[in-house]
Amino acid sequence: MMMMDDEMENGRSVYQDKPRTFPAVRSKSYSPLIFRILRQINPRVLAIFLLAVFGGVFYVGARTSPIVVFVFMICIISFCFAVYLTKWVLAKDEGPPEMSQISDAIRDGAEGFFRTQYGTISKMAFLLALVILSIYLFRTSTPQQEAAGIGRLSSAFITVAAFLLGALCSGIAGYVGMWVSVRANVRVSSAARRSAREALQVAVRAGGFSAIVVVGMAVFGVAILYATFYYWLEVDSPGSMRVTDLPLLLVGYGFGASFVALFAQLGGGIYTKAADVGADLVGKVEQGIPEDDPRNPAVIADLVGDNVGDCAARGADLFESIAAEIISAMILGGTMAQKCKIDDPSGFILFPLVVHSFDLVVSSAGILSIRGTRDPGTLGAIEDPMTILQKGYSVAIVLAVLTFGVSTRWLLYTEQAPSAWLNFALCGLVGIITAYAFVWISKYYTDYKHEPVKTLALASSTGHGTNIIAGVALGLESTALPVLVISVAIVSAFWLGHTSGLMDESGNPTGGLFGTAVATMGMLSTAAYVLTMDMFGPIADNAGGIVEMGHQPESVREITDVLDAVGNTTKATTKGFAIGSAALASFLLFSAYMDEVSSFARVPFEQVDIAVPEVFVGGLLGSMLIFVFSAWACSAVGKTAQEVVNEVRRQFIERPGIMEYKEKPDYNRCVAIVASASLREMIKPGALAIISPIIIGFIFRILGNITNQPLLGAKVVASMLMFATVSGILMALFFNTAGGAWDNAKKYIETGALGGKGSDCHKAAVTGDTVGDPFKDTAGPSLHVLIKMLATITLVMAPVFL
Amino acid sequence: MMMMDDEMENGRSVYQDKPRTFPAVRSKSYSPLIFRILRQINPRVLAIFLLAVFGGVFYVGARTSPIVVFVFMICIISFCFAVYLTKWVLAKDEGPPEMSQISDAIRDGAEGFFRTQYGTISKMAFLLALVILSIYLFRTSTPQQEAAGIGRLSSAFITVAAFLLGALCSGIAGYVGMWVSVRANVRVSSAARRSAREALQVAVRAGGFSAIVVVGMAVFGVAILYATFYYWLEVDSPGSMRVTDLPLLLVGYGFGASFVALFAQLGGGIYTKAADVGADLVGKVEQGIPEDDPRNPAVIADLVGDNVGDCAARGADLFESIAAEIISAMILGGTMAQKCKIDDPSGFILFPLVVHSFDLVVSSAGILSIRGTRDPGTLGAIEDPMTILQKGYSVAIVLAVLTFGVSTRWLLYTEQAPSAWLNFALCGLVGIITAYAFVWISKYYTDYKHEPVKTLALASSTGHGTNIIAGVALGLESTALPVLVISVAIVSAFWLGHTSGLMDESGNPTGGLFGTAVATMGMLSTAAYVLTMDMFGPIADNAGGIVEMGHQPESVREITDVLDAVGNTTKATTKGFAIGSAALASFLLFSAYMDEVSSFARVPFEQVDIAVPEVFVGGLLGSMLIFVFSAWACSAVGKTAQEVVNEVRRQFIERPGIMEYKEKPDYNRCVAIVASASLREMIKPGALAIISPIIIGFIFRILGNITNQPLLGAKVVASMLMFATVSGILMALFFNTAGGAWDNAKKYIETGALGGKGSDCHKAAVTGDTVGDPFKDTAGPSLHVLIKMLATITLVMAPVFL
Repeated sequence: MMMMDDEMENGRSVYQDKPRTFPAVRSKSYSPLIFRILRQINPRVLAIFLLAVFGGVFYVGARTSPIVVFVFMICIISFCFAVYLTKWVLAKDEGPPEMSQISDAIRDGAEGFFRTQYGTISKMAFLLALVILSIYLFRTSTPQQEAAGIGRLSSAFITVAAFLLGALCSGIAGYVGMWVSVRANVRVSSAARRSAREALQVAVRAGGFSAIVVVGMAVFGVAILYATFYYWLEVDSPGSMRVTDLPLLLVGYGFGASFVALFAQLGGGIYTKAADVGADLVGKVEQGIPEDDPRNPAVIADLVGDNVGDCAARGADLFESIAAEIISAMILGGTMAQKCKIDDPSGFILFPLVVHSFDLVVSSAGILSIRGTRDPGTLGAIEDPMTILQKGYSVAIVLAVLTFGVSTRWLLYTEQAPSAWLNFALCGLVGIITAYAFVWISKYYTDYKHEPVKTLALASSTGHGTNIIAGVALGLESTALPVLVISVAIVSAFWLGHTSGLMDESGNPTGGLFGTAVATMGMLSTAAYVLTMDMFGPIADNAGGIVEMGHQPESVREITDVLDAVGNTTKATTKGFAIGSAALASFLLFSAYMDEVSSFARVPFEQVDIAVPEVFVGGLLGSMLIFVFSAWACSAVGKTAQEVVNEVRRQFIERPGIMEYKEKPDYNRCVAIVASASLREMIKPGALAIISPIIIGFIFRILGNITNQPLLGAKVVASMLMFATVSGILMALFFNTAGGAWDNAKKYIETGALGGKGSDCHKAAVTGDTVGDPFKDTAGPSLHVLIKMLATITLVMAPVFL
Repeated sequence: MMMMDDEMENGRSVYQDKPRTFPAVRSKSYSPLIFRILRQINPRVLAIFLLAVFGGVFYVGARTSPIVVFVFMICIISFCFAVYLTKWVLAKDEGPPEMSQISDAIRDGAEGFFRTQYGTISKMAFLLALVILSIYLFRTSTPQQEAAGIGRLSSAFITVAAFLLGALCSGIAGYVGMWVSVRANVRVSSAARRSAREALQVAVRAGGFSAIVVVGMAVFGVAILYATFYYWLEVDSPGSMRVTDLPLLLVGYGFGASFVALFAQLGGGIYTKAADVGADLVGKVEQGIPEDDPRNPAVIADLVGDNVGDCAARGADLFESIAAEIISAMILGGTMAQKCKIDDPSGFILFPLVVHSFDLVVSSAGILSIRGTRDPGTLGAIEDPMTILQKGYSVAIVLAVLTFGVSTRWLLYTEQAPSAWLNFALCGLVGIITAYAFVWISKYYTDYKHEPVKTLALASSTGHGTNIIAGVALGLESTALPVLVISVAIVSAFWLGHTSGLMDESGNPTGGLFGTAVATMGMLSTAAYVLTMDMFGPIADNAGGIVEMGHQPESVREITDVLDAVGNTTKATTKGFAIGSAALASFLLFSAYMDEVSSFARVPFEQVDIAVPEVFVGGLLGSMLIFVFSAWACSAVGKTAQEVVNEVRRQFIERPGIMEYKEKPDYNRCVAIVASASLREMIKPGALAIISPIIIGFIFRILGNITNQPLLGAKVVASMLMFATVSGILMALFFNTAGGAWDNAKKYIETGALGGKGSDCHKAAVTGDTVGDPFKDTAGPSLHVLIKMLATITLVMAPVFL
């Protein structure tokens, strides 16, 4: 770390006597069909076509609301900024050929897996689209829809189209995350040979590119759908739909996004951790070769995993978080505006889109604030990359607070309740503070500068068993503070909204739920910057692998190691952030679900009473779903890792020359084994998550008909959803924190504490780290997605339960 | 196992060349103050006094109901039977002095810990009694109480007296369990020198003694309280209380029982596993000496732990289960009888007492069916003790089905709904089938004859990490089937009750909840036999330790090992049983809580709506309570084990002669360290469990007052209770099954599979076993008690939330 900023080119000759690595040969990059078609079109034709599309979009937007035009403009500017970032990153050099060859192998593996994985997912998506279509063709319509003259066919078409668009956008979000990371990794490695600052900047800008595309696409997609439906259905003209009912048509988009995100996260999460655990068990433990050593046949699979598991899956995850949160807030805003008879409700409905447009602006400012050269004032001092990233975060947060105030005043001001906007601005502040508290808490429990991880490291000194017991206890205990924070946030935001002065016709305060929605938006108001910090981690991790395999000098590896460690911390904090927003968004979607059931069933559905045995059983089943889903996610990693272990052992036995660099290991076989195993293993938990609520809702609907309990299916599903949400939040917190703490306890011991590397204490800590891998990178993140997927699937599938 | 039935006396000389063990010296047994006083009284005076007491009890009983007299008679006969069993066990010889000296040391340690532990618990109980008293002096009374002329003072006195009696009985239940086990262990060891059958019979009869005392005391205690209140308050006479309101006065008894059980289970659970883990880590892993070796300074503490952790704590746990279940069923029976205006409601109210009286009878028959000599027909064949125990269980179950039918026809027949008793008999059958399914499922997941444990053992072959991942996945997955079974049981029992034909005044069916209550009773209808099988385990375990430390021949140890292994299986199945009944009992107590709140608040309280933000937050906090409680229970074991490890290491260093049998290890220091650490560590989780619901209820009550939401505190607590119950059931299932599976995976490998003892695979399995220890014997069982404690504390503390 002391030498981080020195130039390392000269030190390279020392390492030249090392034997050469075994580069992979393929290097032609895969590009999806749509890109290939686009590339074959004459650029001028393409430009005209694009202009026409944008023109049409803007025309529709202008017909809808000036706010939509504003959102479109910000999105397009942001996309241009993203193009600038990626051009800047791609202009960097790829370093010596031994590095770029490794990077090519990683790219091939990642793109290959992406292709087959998304092939499977898209088949399932089309199947599900057919199911939704047939369900909607038999569903009854709501009084609102009848008033608007929307028949069953259009209702079915709208939902299916929204679903497919959501799925497609989610797929693109994942692809973009992976696309940039497999190209940036080698450029970060190369930049690390020159200076730590430059490497940091390349990684941040690459992460920033995908973060802005992901957030921008979520905003742009919802805005386009909204404007299109508005224009097409002639909303707000006499005899047609009211604008306040429009957001409910968008739920298909959220479901499509979460459906793809669930499988992306499961498949990617299983891939990355199975390869990691498998490679470590034989490489590190049995053969004693270092991490990322080119002799390990599973090393390329491990590096591929970072891209498909962390970059692609996290992109899809956050895309879905933001889409779900925007849609649920729009629904609540619409419902509230209608209840309060606000003259122009579009401000309340479009508020979330504007907040996330500003998110793009403030996050871009944060990304740009990270410079490639150090500040003149700090010359000579040691720089901690975490400090630099946090400075950028501070920039984004300060700007977010300001723009949040501006948006509330602009859109939420109504003469009916002149000070309501101020209350909502405070709700936003509650959200921002909650986000900050979550980041701080997850840092406290997973950073080895603090007590918990130190205690965990100490427990490793009495063996593997006590290390695991202490880690489990730490993870379970770490749920307390986030739950308290989220509880305070929910209640206080609700009451700020409740007392905002917005009243319905009979004089009851109605702003409570919308207050919670605004707090969620506040929490996500710097989402693009947070996602940037998250994407930064796996890129740095990959860069480290390339440096190791490309036999670069030790000092270069030191630089990438520091960046990698910082990436671990930012990854852990993003997860806390994702859980917090999932908890709030699910609570909002739950309210939207109750509204929707009321309007379809044409009877008020305002209570879910857990004293009814069936409803209690629904809760029991919901919590059980979380446990079984987690079990299957963990055991999928275990089983796949087992296959990797056997394959690697086989290669070492059959090709003894590998250990002396005389024979080339068969990287591709490991890649293929992990890929096919993760595709197989992701189906079981994914199918469980999708089928259970539908089946349970259907069974209890029948039971309700027999026993003459109206709406029983809908109530049981509601209770299932709430219990699953609560258990899911707690289990995800447990998995993420325990996993992160084990990882860092090992890192703490590797700094030399308690005997250092190679001691018995270190071995115990490695066991903990292995256990933590599927916890923090497979089960935990899959649970975030699962929670929101359950909330959207109940919304879309509600006709089955009624 | 092949030689199990041979006589072993002759083989002993082979082992005489082994150096002698280090016997402890003290052997004077401790007896509680009350026993010492009783012993000093002239036996004739005592007999007259007892006769007078019984006469009074019978007089009061006769004034109440002939059913109560019947219950009293069965209880007294059972107590006599229990005295016969204990005389039979104590008449057995204690074997050679080297064994009885060890047994004395274990008895001293167990009684010493019991004394200090229950000293602490009783202080806390008195403190809590004062708190309850002061709360009740300020509470408002219900219309029923006012009508009956029961003032605040009598209401407070009734609750506090019931609480203290419950606490006292629970303490006695724990003491009895431990009293017999510390005396039976050496007698089982001695009997094992003669024949396996005899050893089995001694262990079963010793376990049977405490099981019958525990169940009998629960029934007798509730019956006496009921009769006393009935007589004292002149129930059913004009102008006084109605009999249907009487059971609500008994909740204090249930709370007292669960309060003591919680601390008994926490303290005992921490004690036994801290000593076990600590002894193993230094003894087995570091020094390579076998389990229960006399050179290990922590070995006596480990053996003491079996008695205080498994016998005393499980006795208190099941006492509390049965008491809580009886009281909740009585409350529901009373409420239903009142709603249906049944002429003589006493049948419905006293039904649970009769069911458990028959439980005593059928379980006694089951215990007696296990003979000391083998059946003539099976001579020469190998006997599996598990088969013998299960034969006894079959006897008990068949009789239970018959007597259950008799009781329903006798007590639940009413002219209003002539076939209702048949429906309730079917509910009972549902409960019995549920119990059987639970036993089968936990056997499937924890027995190494089945797939799951075999897969877990296979995962150990790739290292510590994969073993833990597989075990966690197994435990999480194992929650599915029990949840499905309990869901089916709740819904079907509810509907059997609902369609029983019992209607309230307006013609609505009302028997649903009572149906669930009857199913719970069905589940617990062989509780005494199940508890016998459970108690059998730790006695056999202790006997094995005494055989090992007393240097008996290998073949004797083989016999006790087989008994010990069977004990592990029965322990695991009892836990499944305890969770199932806890789930049902909590659901019943929840209904009782809602009834109670309605009658105190004088407004109907019929719904707990989780769509209200505060209520949702209550649920979040309830689930979080379970996670944090589990965390603290696990880390208490970890921390205490750490202290044991350091002490044992110190003794080995300071007294190098220990390893050559030249110096005597200081057993007492280890006992003292574990005892004081477990007493210290049990406070934190216990206090959390008791204080959280009170504080949360109080805070939300204030918040409800401010925000004008009536009953908010009560609703939030209700939601907290339900979410905690659901999460608690799932977590307890996870902990128990994962722990049991790890234990048996290790045992499976020790039979020679996958490399056998000493292989790397075995080492990984030992790690899993260590992790499983606090899971299955501290956190898991504490959660059973916690669930029921939460249900009773909310009932007693309801005035705080209103």
